[in-house]
Amino acid sequence: MTSYMRITIIGSGNVATHLAAAFKNGGHSIVQVYSRDMHNASLLAYHVKAEAIDSLEQINPETDLFVIAVKDDAIEAIASILAKYQKLIVHTSGATDLQVLLKRTQNAGVFYPLQTFSKTKEVNFDTVPLCIEGANEQITSQLNELAYAITQNVYRINSAERKTLHLAAVFACNFTNYLYYLSQQLLADQKLPFDLLRPLILETAEKVQEHLPASVQTGPAVRNDEKTMNAHLQLLHENPELQQLYKLLSQGIIKMDKQG
Amino acid sequence: MTSYMRITIIGSGNVATHLAAAFKNGGHSIVQVYSRDMHNASLLAYHVKAEAIDSLEQINPETDLFVIAVKDDAIEAIASILAKYQKLIVHTSGATDLQVLLKRTQNAGVFYPLQTFSKTKEVNFDTVPLCIEGANEQITSQLNELAYAITQNVYRINSAERKTLHLAAVFACNFTNYLYYLSQQLLADQKLPFDLLRPLILETAEKVQEHLPASVQTGPAVRNDEKTMNAHLQLLHENPELQQLYKLLSQGIIKMDKQG
Repeated sequence: MTSYMRITIIGSGNVATHLAAAFKNGGHSIVQVYSRDMHNASLLAYHVKAEAIDSLEQINPETDLFVIAVKDDAIEAIASILAKYQKLIVHTSGATDLQVLLKRTQNAGVFYPLQTFSKTKEVNFDTVPLCIEGANEQITSQLNELAYAITQNVYRINSAERKTLHLAAVFACNFTNYLYYLSQQLLADQKLPFDLLRPLILETAEKVQEHLPASVQTGPAVRNDEKTMNAHLQLLHENPELQQLYKLLSQGIIKMDKQG
Repeated sequence: MTSYMRITIIGSGNVATHLAAAFKNGGHSIVQVYSRDMHNASLLAYHVKAEAIDSLEQINPETDLFVIAVKDDAIEAIASILAKYQKLIVHTSGATDLQVLLKRTQNAGVFYPLQTFSKTKEVNFDTVPLCIEGANEQITSQLNELAYAITQNVYRINSAERKTLHLAAVFACNFTNYLYYLSQQLLADQKLPFDLLRPLILETAEKVQEHLPASVQTGPAVRNDEKTMNAHLQLLHENPELQQLYKLLSQGIIKMDKQG
């Protein structure tokens, strides 16, 4: 196999969209884009100069790689249909074991980009960590080559490690965004604009780009400043769920290992 | 009063350090820097070409403004000592009512920079929101002028609003950093590098610079993906505190108002 690949994209969501564009920019060709929704398939296919299809019966077997970027629950069913083409199949899911594909084909791997994608925001793929896993060393090394064409951050991560990684990403991204939401709601209740907090949010994320989080922890809990914490709990007296969250997070910070 | 001010800095911590530099850069002169620790006072005083003192008896009354940037608990005691000079006194605390100064002097205000500062990291003050409050309109307008010399983001925030703002900042910054810490610990347990998550953390913060958090929420909870959430809880089975936190945050996300 040469470094040039013909790639078929299964899915038209955020991951499918960003990966397809990155492969195309990396010099590969996108053969087809499949989506159950022809409109979505066409939108993405147009951008990457591929054919749009909305039925897996229309699959063009002249491809080197199927990239399954669909909801986790649908991965296995799609793999079982694609297996007959005897081409390399990868999924892009942080939460799904390679084993799910291995039940259907040995020519399988994982190509998991560890980033949060929105269709409306460009992502610079250079800095996106790509976590790869192959059913054997030859596949891993193919995926390695493919990954390095679109980013400098390539990690070989097995399925057990990827589970932990996906869980950690939920804390670092999904739960963090929910804390942003709670802070925005607290401000909105007082008719204060969220712009007040945006620079703080960005700086907090930028700080841990160079440091470990434990070494830059600030706030009343890390100082064990009970007066301020009690005042905050009092402010939340009409919201017992937020009080409980405040206590749980503060207790964690008080006990955290400052050495990181 | 002209726009040029002679300013005395009480304190030598992160807020004192960054404000003193910003005032100096804004064309004001720093008269003295006070710290109980002469070494810290001297370090900061050297940078802003001021006199270092470690006793409040050495205060030079030839100043226009005292900026009290010390621990919340020490603000009132220091204000009571400085009040006799009959100069404008401000504190820089998000959690402290203006009332604490008004007990000692009517010539009082608040100058609260809403940012997380580390001594080792430069902060571009242009983007730091400054929240000001004066005991009367003349003071508010003085502080307004002073604030606009160092940032374009000036907000008039009263003491009640500032309490909420400070609480919201704890969620958006301190608690968020603790989630970063938890994610880093989960990776460290598997000997995985924190670098895997750093781009995700930055992108998550960048997304809410343009959008409201509710509109960019991702992850298993917002999809109500019980299979993934149960797998995550299983992974955390040796850590009941993290399980509790995971459940509480996920339940919150499931119930959140997607309209933000």
